[in-house]
Amino acid sequence: MLADGREIIYFDEAPDSGRADLADERELPRVEPAGSEQGSVPDDRLRWDPLLGEWVAFAEVRQGRTFLPSAGDCPLCPSRPGKLTEVPAPDYDVVVFENKFPAFAGSFSGPVVGAGLYDRRPASGRCEVVCFTADHDASLADLSARRTSTVLAAWADRTTELGQIAGIEHVYCFENRGPEVGVTLQHPHGQVYALPFVPPRIRQMLARAQDYRANHGGNLFDDLLAAEVSDGLRVVVRNDHWTAFVPAAARWPFEVLVMPSHRVPDLGYLSHDAVAAFGDIYPAVLQRLDALFDAPMPYMAVWHQAPVGSPDARRELAAFVQIMAMRRAPGKLKYRASTESGADVWSSDVLPETAARMLREAG
Amino acid sequence: MLADGREIIYFDEAPDSGRADLADERELPRVEPAGSEQGSVPDDRLRWDPLLGEWVAFAEVRQGRTFLPSAGDCPLCPSRPGKLTEVPAPDYDVVVFENKFPAFAGSFSGPVVGAGLYDRRPASGRCEVVCFTADHDASLADLSARRTSTVLAAWADRTTELGQIAGIEHVYCFENRGPEVGVTLQHPHGQVYALPFVPPRIRQMLARAQDYRANHGGNLFDDLLAAEVSDGLRVVVRNDHWTAFVPAAARWPFEVLVMPSHRVPDLGYLSHDAVAAFGDIYPAVLQRLDALFDAPMPYMAVWHQAPVGSPDARRELAAFVQIMAMRRAPGKLKYRASTESGADVWSSDVLPETAARMLREAG
Repeated sequence: MLADGREIIYFDEAPDSGRADLADERELPRVEPAGSEQGSVPDDRLRWDPLLGEWVAFAEVRQGRTFLPSAGDCPLCPSRPGKLTEVPAPDYDVVVFENKFPAFAGSFSGPVVGAGLYDRRPASGRCEVVCFTADHDASLADLSARRTSTVLAAWADRTTELGQIAGIEHVYCFENRGPEVGVTLQHPHGQVYALPFVPPRIRQMLARAQDYRANHGGNLFDDLLAAEVSDGLRVVVRNDHWTAFVPAAARWPFEVLVMPSHRVPDLGYLSHDAVAAFGDIYPAVLQRLDALFDAPMPYMAVWHQAPVGSPDARRELAAFVQIMAMRRAPGKLKYRASTESGADVWSSDVLPETAARMLREAG
Repeated sequence: MLADGREIIYFDEAPDSGRADLADERELPRVEPAGSEQGSVPDDRLRWDPLLGEWVAFAEVRQGRTFLPSAGDCPLCPSRPGKLTEVPAPDYDVVVFENKFPAFAGSFSGPVVGAGLYDRRPASGRCEVVCFTADHDASLADLSARRTSTVLAAWADRTTELGQIAGIEHVYCFENRGPEVGVTLQHPHGQVYALPFVPPRIRQMLARAQDYRANHGGNLFDDLLAAEVSDGLRVVVRNDHWTAFVPAAARWPFEVLVMPSHRVPDLGYLSHDAVAAFGDIYPAVLQRLDALFDAPMPYMAVWHQAPVGSPDARRELAAFVQIMAMRRAPGKLKYRASTESGADVWSSDVLPETAARMLREAG
């Protein structure tokens, strides 16, 4: 446990590291349990947008979050004498701890207030940081197959653990990479959001999968993966357990879906072999993205998976990672301007077949 | 008509300018009518995303579009001796012409091919550029009330005209402002997209409005506007015809909706008085956004309106402009990273009531 009461969990590749027993020697004020910064502010920080029918979270505390610190002040590096960080240990493999500036936090006791136009409720939930390596200057693309598997195992563990908390409806694992994406800490890390509602994107995919079954009789994800493997035109790389391909209607200039061969509802259901095999394929995709324009590719990598408590959704939805890489040409980014941001109408300058070929050739 | 066959339309504030009769003296290859660059490529550039149930357009031609030219090479400035631009006239008030690098173009003859996973059809439609002023260094916030009204009148005209083209289902008017948004031409301008489908965002708002009527008996937009005016806490500025307010669940740090007092389905139905009164209120909002951090505010401003051909939708949906301003603090932008881009889960650092107060005080 950290000095302010936040939980920290080490995922060690060697046994008996003893790290879990190390104390956080910082003097930090105790985190308020209710998720409200002052403890007295009513926790109604989740507001209903009546025009789109979605919840929006408000977290003014995040305005003060750590912003692009120098390497010497990195809060995600291991602690060293005279420089205590978020991680009390002098080294680590993969470590997970509660986010100091969470958008979702606290318990689930608050009711929905209001009716229709202005519903509000607590922005309850939990946000965690997942550090991939103690090496400040590394990136996930550089790590060993084993470490990549350890990162996935950590996300799988958190999916299962956080999904058991009362009130949590969905666990969302992701990595933001690069200042172009808005990253405020450069140390290689991902995140986990345990959410008190099912994200709109997941509801949308579930509706499509149910519609697809009604019209075609099969599972949307199974049929899509089979068609991509059979066609092969957009496949980037694959092994027995995973296929990485550019979707036929990719919104981002270099977008890659990495799907397991055997569909599972969430990461906790991946086999040991699948987790191990992920380490062989994922870095190969990331390295190709970096090689495309000989520069670190800014991307968002997000794990879609089924909601926690809905058997119907868990029967249809598939766990897979979507990498949204946003550089379209040397020095040029894909922006989500008015058509994308205001209408959800996307246009892309790069044909998916071209993107897949470029990625294959970059290997 | 421009030299390559694209249409150009002047919206003059004084009569008899004679501009419409000026010839484009450039030698340009004729634009292919089908919307495919080569005339031989099958026009299947609109692809169905089966996971989200949305169309995505592909326009490789846009990779070569003009990218941040210097002021002397601006294609949106009036033509002058030795420097012929997209506008043949030596001056103009507001001018509209077809986009040289359209994401949607051509006629509507192509069928949907494929079934389920890989549907494709022509990316037919029309994209237009709307220049707000001949002054390269101005911005919409600087323009007179009259000019602002002329811009709105141009958008209203294009909404009505383009909505009559067979196959067009929706007309979308917007402005991207600032390099942070991805603007590639700095001359003050907006755009119009005439689309062969109803945008996902519009379908989503319609579903909410229908749901609201079923549950509450009234119109969602009418009730929302009445509640905001009555409450007043989030109102920025208003006059008899328009109210500008920060929505209670704003996703962007400084987001403003400007709604007409009398609901209309699209801009073509605004009264003359409403169009004129818009010139008094809209620049006041934009000036406040620029004043907040004493720097030009990067924003996307988009006109939501009802689809062309659906009487049910036209009875429920309202025309209004949504300004999405993305600077959250001096030198800091709001990014749409993995939670927003991958899950449609938004969190904001700025409370809407705080944003509204800051905008009122910036006036």
